[in-house]
Amino acid sequence: MAEQYMSMATLKYMLYDVHQLTKLSAYPRFSEYDDNATNMFLDSVKAFCDKECFPYIKEMDEKPVQYKDGKVVVHPQVQTVMKKAGELGLIGSSFDYEQGGLQLPSMMNQAAYFMIDAANNHVSGYAGLTSGAAGLIMAFGSPELKDTYVPNMIAGEWGGTMCLTEPQAGSSLSDITTTAYPTEHGYYHIKGQKIWISGGDNHFTENIVHLLLARIEGAPAGTKGISLFVVPKNRPTGDGGLTPNGVFTAGDFQKLGQRGYATTHLVFGETECRGFLVGEPHKGLTYMFQMMNGARISVGRHGVSIATAAYYASLQYAHERPQGRRLSDGGKKDLTQGQTLIINHPDIRRMLLLQKAISEGTLSLILQTARYHDMEKVATTDEEREENHLLLEILTPIAKTYPSEMGQVSVSNGVQILGGMGYSAETILQQYYRDIRILAIYEGTTGIQSLDLLARKVTMEDSKALKLLMREIKTTIQTASGHDELKQYAEVLSAKLALNKDILTFLAPFAIKGNYERYLSDATIYMQYLGTVVMGWQWLKIALTAQEALKKSDAKYNADFYNSQIHTMKFFYKYEMPKTDGFAETIKNSDELNIVSEKEMIF
Amino acid sequence: MAEQYMSMATLKYMLYDVHQLTKLSAYPRFSEYDDNATNMFLDSVKAFCDKECFPYIKEMDEKPVQYKDGKVVVHPQVQTVMKKAGELGLIGSSFDYEQGGLQLPSMMNQAAYFMIDAANNHVSGYAGLTSGAAGLIMAFGSPELKDTYVPNMIAGEWGGTMCLTEPQAGSSLSDITTTAYPTEHGYYHIKGQKIWISGGDNHFTENIVHLLLARIEGAPAGTKGISLFVVPKNRPTGDGGLTPNGVFTAGDFQKLGQRGYATTHLVFGETECRGFLVGEPHKGLTYMFQMMNGARISVGRHGVSIATAAYYASLQYAHERPQGRRLSDGGKKDLTQGQTLIINHPDIRRMLLLQKAISEGTLSLILQTARYHDMEKVATTDEEREENHLLLEILTPIAKTYPSEMGQVSVSNGVQILGGMGYSAETILQQYYRDIRILAIYEGTTGIQSLDLLARKVTMEDSKALKLLMREIKTTIQTASGHDELKQYAEVLSAKLALNKDILTFLAPFAIKGNYERYLSDATIYMQYLGTVVMGWQWLKIALTAQEALKKSDAKYNADFYNSQIHTMKFFYKYEMPKTDGFAETIKNSDELNIVSEKEMIF
Repeated sequence: MAEQYMSMATLKYMLYDVHQLTKLSAYPRFSEYDDNATNMFLDSVKAFCDKECFPYIKEMDEKPVQYKDGKVVVHPQVQTVMKKAGELGLIGSSFDYEQGGLQLPSMMNQAAYFMIDAANNHVSGYAGLTSGAAGLIMAFGSPELKDTYVPNMIAGEWGGTMCLTEPQAGSSLSDITTTAYPTEHGYYHIKGQKIWISGGDNHFTENIVHLLLARIEGAPAGTKGISLFVVPKNRPTGDGGLTPNGVFTAGDFQKLGQRGYATTHLVFGETECRGFLVGEPHKGLTYMFQMMNGARISVGRHGVSIATAAYYASLQYAHERPQGRRLSDGGKKDLTQGQTLIINHPDIRRMLLLQKAISEGTLSLILQTARYHDMEKVATTDEEREENHLLLEILTPIAKTYPSEMGQVSVSNGVQILGGMGYSAETILQQYYRDIRILAIYEGTTGIQSLDLLARKVTMEDSKALKLLMREIKTTIQTASGHDELKQYAEVLSAKLALNKDILTFLAPFAIKGNYERYLSDATIYMQYLGTVVMGWQWLKIALTAQEALKKSDAKYNADFYNSQIHTMKFFYKYEMPKTDGFAETIKNSDELNIVSEKEMIF
Repeated sequence: MAEQYMSMATLKYMLYDVHQLTKLSAYPRFSEYDDNATNMFLDSVKAFCDKECFPYIKEMDEKPVQYKDGKVVVHPQVQTVMKKAGELGLIGSSFDYEQGGLQLPSMMNQAAYFMIDAANNHVSGYAGLTSGAAGLIMAFGSPELKDTYVPNMIAGEWGGTMCLTEPQAGSSLSDITTTAYPTEHGYYHIKGQKIWISGGDNHFTENIVHLLLARIEGAPAGTKGISLFVVPKNRPTGDGGLTPNGVFTAGDFQKLGQRGYATTHLVFGETECRGFLVGEPHKGLTYMFQMMNGARISVGRHGVSIATAAYYASLQYAHERPQGRRLSDGGKKDLTQGQTLIINHPDIRRMLLLQKAISEGTLSLILQTARYHDMEKVATTDEEREENHLLLEILTPIAKTYPSEMGQVSVSNGVQILGGMGYSAETILQQYYRDIRILAIYEGTTGIQSLDLLARKVTMEDSKALKLLMREIKTTIQTASGHDELKQYAEVLSAKLALNKDILTFLAPFAIKGNYERYLSDATIYMQYLGTVVMGWQWLKIALTAQEALKKSDAKYNADFYNSQIHTMKFFYKYEMPKTDGFAETIKNSDELNIVSEKEMIF
């Protein structure tokens, strides 16, 4: 059977060969995860995806979430998926054994969710957010909060959300006004509204546990006055029962895509609504960032997954659809011959290769990021821990943004391959095209991520994160340079690192002079620059792994597989890397055109 | 009132100032179109758009075309629009006075349809295709065909379509199999199927006149055996009545967007279906190209229009939505101040400027193309006629493709400006995002247009069309160079013309050696290159017009208006023109990666 939404062979190549998953099992935390255990786990997740997720993706779009009589009615399969995800251990997968988790490496966790997202991006968020919310309680909550909420969440019985956005405060968390009023009982009374809450309600789950940002009455203005609360839809009564907790669902947003995934408007405190403080007061945003950082990488991984599912849908069509003829030498078409399959036309091939380059390159990027996360956890020295932490930090906005943005381009190319058929509601491509569009908005828009990258991550700790990233890239360049077949690509990448320095040298004086608005005015273009360079690094690494395997006699895959990886790397270097020169030229252009100036009336 | 979907001031600036519409009135054909007449016409079309088109755009998406009991049920407003469009003369607008037309310049016609498309891209196609079909009969049909069909069509009473695509022959017209069997009565019996037929049926129109490509039984293979027929849904009985003509509607495709615009599957000849030959046998494709060329420019104009409507929707939101604060010098946010409007954030401003640059620059491109069309018509010498014809020919694939492709990018930026709200079904942005996606597929995909550009248009008549285009661009460069404020941009554009020569010098040897597949393998990237350069030309022309007006004491607009044009030109040169270097680098890269090679198994 042709691959329908992802390739296990490619995933395993990325995990085991490019990113050396099994080396993690040398560390005590991951000692149970040898090849055999990880393969079994991956296969069981794939079976779950094939049976419970992929068959429902189109139906969930066609029969979207409905808001009826105050209830959010979701597709019945969501319940099954949550339950099975709980049974498979996917919701508490990264938790310690003693917390009821699988102590799964982050790389494996990303691999598992990559499969689920690719099979059905409408269901995976329910489980993913529940996992993130439980993780937040586990990290910062009191023993009582942990005992009360986490077991049911990781079993897939209760849902979880993150409640940040308010109607008057979208990207600007400084301005949230939801308030927590202290009571003498230790808990707080919550009053306020939250919008765009993913998985915020559904008709079947017994309980949903909201991790909510609010200000304790009288707290300082801005982000330093924000605290984190557990606010359940129904609060446990202590005798095993539940009672409504004043969380009212005011509506469900109908959306362009991800129509099977509820996006709710919640009103807290019209009747008594108790909130339970997590950790210390006024430190909520710091705590929430743990979940947000995870969620940002998850959004990037969603981009990888949807782009991958779209790639396999287009590939299948291109392999089956006859249309037109190849141009013979001399330019004549031979009409006595039957039509050729469209995969043989250069422009179709170019679009498929773009899809492949984006899909597989971004998968590698997500696993790279996860690897730093794992290494941070198992690091044996403080320095090693810090280095891996900083690498995770600087890659997070890129891992969120590049797959979200270029994933759209990739899926759009997928639609184009099908021509009119791609635009028809009959085919899945148009759905992926709609589904993927939200990712550049979720969890901090591309603009916000770009500010995070250039304002915070590039400069943090005297640019240490950036220097470490450059060191990592240079290591790959150096090894690749030892192979005649890869040398020229390694040189291109090396030149891009030098150009990165030029760009930052151009920008730095603005920051030094305190003109941060100008320093950051083209942050999004810088994100495009560095994102493409980082992808160039990943492709060189993928090709290097393939090149080394080709020289072995006992390689796991056949030569075609490895050559295909090298071919796709060359494609990325021919069609994508040259864009970086344009981005650099734009950033280094001193015309200031997008900063408000008093004398200009542009619009 | 803020502009809702287009700006009349901008349209008039492009028409009268940049493209000198009124100069056309010096020619007898257009002598009635002085400023007064054209202004009155534009205002009447705008009133029609405000009243009959724009108020229905969202509803037509939400209540899409339905196929019920063999009938295609469209939104009732379609009938009103067709009737009023007929009354306003919009369907036969470009026809001669003696043909019942308005003898309208093509520039005016494009301006009128730009407004209609921008107001409601779901209704405009019904009128536009009817106009094109009537024009084809008028150009090549017998007097009887003209008398029988055209008057009802241009009155908006009967619809018209173009029937090319068949299930087994999408982009490949060589392979169509619909057959016309000669009869002794002069007419033919038609048998076959056509798919993706826009406006192919509806429940209210008395008659629909299909302009259909078919092979006369025994005709030669390939495109040289294709003939053109008039095939009415109901054929006139000669006594003023109509009788069904064996055209059966088998279905209506549900689509990602343009859901109010019917896309039908038609079956011809299950019962007697008479077709009436247009012109000579086997010349059908040549005739059809008249309509197709017009339709291609119309598709490009649709791209301009949807991008423009999206721009004004985003602009309005950005002017009204407070969120966050500007970064002060020193980088601190002043939380005691209220939130700023998002239009003041550099990244939002950048996206709005991109929308403005694409929307207004492509409007200029469409009018430029229409101007060559007009000049071809009124030319007083053969040479002048040929030159304008060649300029129209080479710009047609670009005018179709650039707005279709970059229009998508522009609308996607518009969605992004609204954040989560842009993804919500409540707002119109998500609809424009879906609507515009079809344009890169309609009337020859981007891949097909790119082959047309590089294989045919660039090389035709010893590259005369290309040389003429370069001459036109150089004229603008030369005049702009005389202004200190524009000199540097003129120099950039000049360098891009030199780079164009380099690219073609690199590619030419492949064509000379007969390796056309390789010559054309990156045709789509060349389209991106030349499209961006041509847009750079349009922006320089727009800015030049503004710069000259700023020096006059009696200019029509205020200085802010002109400065805004110059600002947007600079934006295009900072953010879009640098991309051309990447495109050139890609094309000149000698790795051959998207051509089938026997030894490679890439996918």
